[in-house]
Amino acid sequence: MDYVTHYKCTLCQRSYEAPVDFYTCPSCGETGILDVLYDLDKLKLDLSRDTLAARGDFSMWRYAPLLPVKETHMKDTLRVGWTPLYASKRLKDTMNLKRFHIKDEGMNPTGSLKDRASAVAVLKALEVGNTTIACSSTGNAASSLAGNAARLGVKTVIFVPSRAPKGKLSQLIAFGARVVRVEGDYKAAYNLSKAAIGHFGWYNRNAAINAHMVEGKKTVAFEIVEQLDFHPPDWVVVSVGDGCTIAGVHKGFKELEALGLTKKTPRLLGVQSVGCAPFFEAAKEGRGLRETNGDTIADSIAVGIPRNPVKALRAVKETSGEWVTVTDEAILEAVRTLGKEEGVFAEPAAAASLAGLEKALREGIIGKDEHVVLVSTGNGLKDTLSMKASLGRIKNFQGGLEELIEYFDKDHHKGGTK
Amino acid sequence: MDYVTHYKCTLCQRSYEAPVDFYTCPSCGETGILDVLYDLDKLKLDLSRDTLAARGDFSMWRYAPLLPVKETHMKDTLRVGWTPLYASKRLKDTMNLKRFHIKDEGMNPTGSLKDRASAVAVLKALEVGNTTIACSSTGNAASSLAGNAARLGVKTVIFVPSRAPKGKLSQLIAFGARVVRVEGDYKAAYNLSKAAIGHFGWYNRNAAINAHMVEGKKTVAFEIVEQLDFHPPDWVVVSVGDGCTIAGVHKGFKELEALGLTKKTPRLLGVQSVGCAPFFEAAKEGRGLRETNGDTIADSIAVGIPRNPVKALRAVKETSGEWVTVTDEAILEAVRTLGKEEGVFAEPAAAASLAGLEKALREGIIGKDEHVVLVSTGNGLKDTLSMKASLGRIKNFQGGLEELIEYFDKDHHKGGTK
Repeated sequence: MDYVTHYKCTLCQRSYEAPVDFYTCPSCGETGILDVLYDLDKLKLDLSRDTLAARGDFSMWRYAPLLPVKETHMKDTLRVGWTPLYASKRLKDTMNLKRFHIKDEGMNPTGSLKDRASAVAVLKALEVGNTTIACSSTGNAASSLAGNAARLGVKTVIFVPSRAPKGKLSQLIAFGARVVRVEGDYKAAYNLSKAAIGHFGWYNRNAAINAHMVEGKKTVAFEIVEQLDFHPPDWVVVSVGDGCTIAGVHKGFKELEALGLTKKTPRLLGVQSVGCAPFFEAAKEGRGLRETNGDTIADSIAVGIPRNPVKALRAVKETSGEWVTVTDEAILEAVRTLGKEEGVFAEPAAAASLAGLEKALREGIIGKDEHVVLVSTGNGLKDTLSMKASLGRIKNFQGGLEELIEYFDKDHHKGGTK
Repeated sequence: MDYVTHYKCTLCQRSYEAPVDFYTCPSCGETGILDVLYDLDKLKLDLSRDTLAARGDFSMWRYAPLLPVKETHMKDTLRVGWTPLYASKRLKDTMNLKRFHIKDEGMNPTGSLKDRASAVAVLKALEVGNTTIACSSTGNAASSLAGNAARLGVKTVIFVPSRAPKGKLSQLIAFGARVVRVEGDYKAAYNLSKAAIGHFGWYNRNAAINAHMVEGKKTVAFEIVEQLDFHPPDWVVVSVGDGCTIAGVHKGFKELEALGLTKKTPRLLGVQSVGCAPFFEAAKEGRGLRETNGDTIADSIAVGIPRNPVKALRAVKETSGEWVTVTDEAILEAVRTLGKEEGVFAEPAAAASLAGLEKALREGIIGKDEHVVLVSTGNGLKDTLSMKASLGRIKNFQGGLEELIEYFDKDHHKGGTK
């Protein structure tokens, strides 16, 4: 907190001295998303590998000096972050990679990486004396906000489109969120949230708009680096919806490099769904983003109008990364592969990253001698229906042992029995 | 591992020198569940508060010396344990408790406390050279086994009754488990699993039968103690299904007291559902357990034929604890209370503990000046349908701001706005 010096517009590059009382650039309007800048010289003096290692806090707050919030309420939040980074056991060999790690963000308190942003939102709201936070979302942003706010006694108002699935609403209701269901699509919900936030003065957790959300998300990069003993991988693979997560990952690695704590920033592979690939298409055609449909089973990345285009495109471009797209079939197969081979149950949007990695390996984008970290952004329990089609494979038995013996013997499934 | 000396039958009290190559007492048969005994004198020399504090491992394996498994594969498992112990913010005051903590076991890798048992099962199977593990369950035991086994490349065969809900099967399929759906009820699935385990020689993770499962579960008590700086609470509240969890909690606290690391073992409040309360009824009537129906929304504790009666009844009796029952309505209300007031989303069986605590306070079983720890055994994402009835409360809006303003003004929901 003490280290934040400026907020800089990603469009016009104008800088504003901290603190500021606006979300986006006053000169560029809502698309003028800001970057949060820190006093790196001062941080260099106060922060080292050793001071980090000495911190007893195993949560995202171990990086408090690199965050734009005061430490006052950090001890009171849900335990967000310091998720496990698993060294791959079997997929590493299947894919012929030198090293391969999986960062399981599904182990955050509400089951997704978005907890990192929402935790910052709640602390920031309290800091400015606001005890109601609003956002429009049907997904992980909403549930993480509802959960993290409930923990601190902060109220939430969540705007959802009329077709919002019941399973997703359940988590919001359990956390006591006030849910406003708006007749129409996501855009209608977003527009009403914007008007209401303006009228009531609620704190705004709409992802891209609020630059502090990316700050929370960048802690996932800090953890990857520390968990790898300050040796960043060659590539980090992450699925992309509105663009805030890959932007956060990028900023995290870049800051550590700028502070001299690491020697490089990994290349970023942005993975989108074939049915919703505005970033992939914009990058391929070298143009700005165009609104698309959100047609994919991976609903957490079905964002047809991404609100953080500049930061996400920059993340891939500046790191000499790449964009790939994957089909829904490949995504569902990736859910099973990640679960079966590594014991990590990911929601479809999270497993999309594995499908993207497989494609990048096939296409020679990523080389077999490289070290890759995959960010699994959300828990598979968020969307158990994604496995529904596979349930048909389950065989029924009448209850007799002979039938079972015949089945397993035929199937050569006796391996490892005594 | 090096500290295990004997296995002792909970029925006939006979002791068998470790290691043993059977699951239950050869003299008493399947109901002769064993206790694992350790060389406490040797442990006293090797284990202290300081040696524990010095361990860098923040998972259940920090208690390796107190577990019946070798350390060989501990570094390769999912990260099980060291879940957060949250100090209550609001419920403490609502309930007029002196101190109140919530242990959120839903933050384990597959979303429940059962990961602690399954992780031990997988390591133990590898230790005896068995690479296939089986169990009969539709719930958390099965999914935790499937996930933890997948991580180590161990095969799983899960026996489920024909009416097993699709949502629960999804997690098993994602982890690559071999699912055997048996025509009939849970008992039919259990009986076929028993016959198949006997025939194929698979490792047996049927909860009570395998004494090592309780050993894994006891680590939750170790963590509570360490997270409270070695001052155990007055009461620990836990919901009870087959009885293995409360047995594990009990054994954990007792062992630390026997080792001189704490001065007392907390009283245990066992919570059951009104619709399935075999332990409550047996304790009240001072008799053995009788088979009952499993009629409750809290499916993880809907166990009509608990297979660990001795250890669970002993846990409550020896600690001068109590049994209470709660209705399904109280359980669903508790899911919302825990989510809204503390930010913890619990599955119904887990939230049942809160309903039980409220009842125990009303009935004067637990005093208001006492320190209570509640174990929330599983993640609410396991069963989002439990909140379905509450979704009717969500109001629809047409999209205009005026309608929203009128609604919120009327509702006095403006608090905290600027």
